[in-house]
Amino acid sequence: MSAEDRRTAILDAATGLLSTHPWEEVTVALLLEAAGISKGGFYHHFTSKDDVLAAVLLRLSDACTAAGQTVYDRSEGDAVARFTAYLAGTTRWELGQADKIMGVIRIALMEGNETIFLGLEQEARRRATPLMRRLVTEGVAEGVFDVIDIDMTVDLLQHAWRMRWVVLAQARRRCARGDPEGGRAMLEERLRLEELMTNRLLGCRETAVRMPASGEFSDFLNSA
Amino acid sequence: MSAEDRRTAILDAATGLLSTHPWEEVTVALLLEAAGISKGGFYHHFTSKDDVLAAVLLRLSDACTAAGQTVYDRSEGDAVARFTAYLAGTTRWELGQADKIMGVIRIALMEGNETIFLGLEQEARRRATPLMRRLVTEGVAEGVFDVIDIDMTVDLLQHAWRMRWVVLAQARRRCARGDPEGGRAMLEERLRLEELMTNRLLGCRETAVRMPASGEFSDFLNSA
Repeated sequence: MSAEDRRTAILDAATGLLSTHPWEEVTVALLLEAAGISKGGFYHHFTSKDDVLAAVLLRLSDACTAAGQTVYDRSEGDAVARFTAYLAGTTRWELGQADKIMGVIRIALMEGNETIFLGLEQEARRRATPLMRRLVTEGVAEGVFDVIDIDMTVDLLQHAWRMRWVVLAQARRRCARGDPEGGRAMLEERLRLEELMTNRLLGCRETAVRMPASGEFSDFLNSA
Repeated sequence: MSAEDRRTAILDAATGLLSTHPWEEVTVALLLEAAGISKGGFYHHFTSKDDVLAAVLLRLSDACTAAGQTVYDRSEGDAVARFTAYLAGTTRWELGQADKIMGVIRIALMEGNETIFLGLEQEARRRATPLMRRLVTEGVAEGVFDVIDIDMTVDLLQHAWRMRWVVLAQARRRCARGDPEGGRAMLEERLRLEELMTNRLLGCRETAVRMPASGEFSDFLNSA
């Protein structure tokens, strides 16, 4: 295996384990076994299993940005339509990776991990920023968005969306506990607030940007 | 000295040193000497000098919140006027502590420190949240604010304001380099954006919340 292939094998193994094991039970030995890599090969690329987790998270975020870019490239209509398509595309991608994302969130919410994840979250957002910036800039040029400042708006939009997966996790737990209506209502309220805030920040003039419909999340909500 | 007095003495010494020394040059020995405390007394309260820095930062943030509370308690008029008074009060307090705040920001912006400060910033904001929440809630009840969601609004307001001291630092450097007009313009643009964003997030109906005037910052800008 080339060095790059080894790195990828480790990340693939970690991503797989993340979906199936509590991360605190994942050891470097388990990672080595799953990836078919020697100890030396591992430490050539990473300093610890948490170092691997950080790389997994950034790779997920790059893949999500790439999915958003693909949807954006194919989208048509004005900036409002393209922004809506981008939101739908990234959400669909995220839902396809839900088990991994939930694994990461579970670790992030554990005592003592908060600070590490704040830094990673910031880095993940930074990677999504150029495309977001482009979407907003185009809407301003087309006169469909009326923003106060492009960079500030992109920053606040990302901040406004950041808790969605935490709410999704809570909503799914509620469904699993036998309250599917409560779970769905929770999700719908969150999407409603994010949609209103997104439109306010973008200063949408005639038509509004839409968040994905709650129906898109049905499989996820019922999969716990 | 009581344990509590010792802790305060250490924090006071650290706060003083922060204004006068680059933090990387501050040693535990220097802190002990400045505070007149034994090594044992020090390690009873703190694990490291960075642990002290975190406590200094949270104490500063508590004092700022207390200053905001005092101004708020004395303020009159509708929620717009009270919010404006709160912004003026906290800004005035911050400007009075500018050398300490600038010391903290300088450390925060240094390579490798970002993650630690993200956590501290989050904790500092959390402490200011109850008063902010009250200010927004009252404005909604009076019908002068029209917010999408109180908690989301408070969170985004705090996020929108977070870069101000970084811009202030840049503006002051610019003044010190012989471009006072450029420095002042930078600050004014920042205050203008924050004011517009604050009003958009609050959904101010008739009258607008005002940021402090740039003149309030003159002494600071010219003090480098």
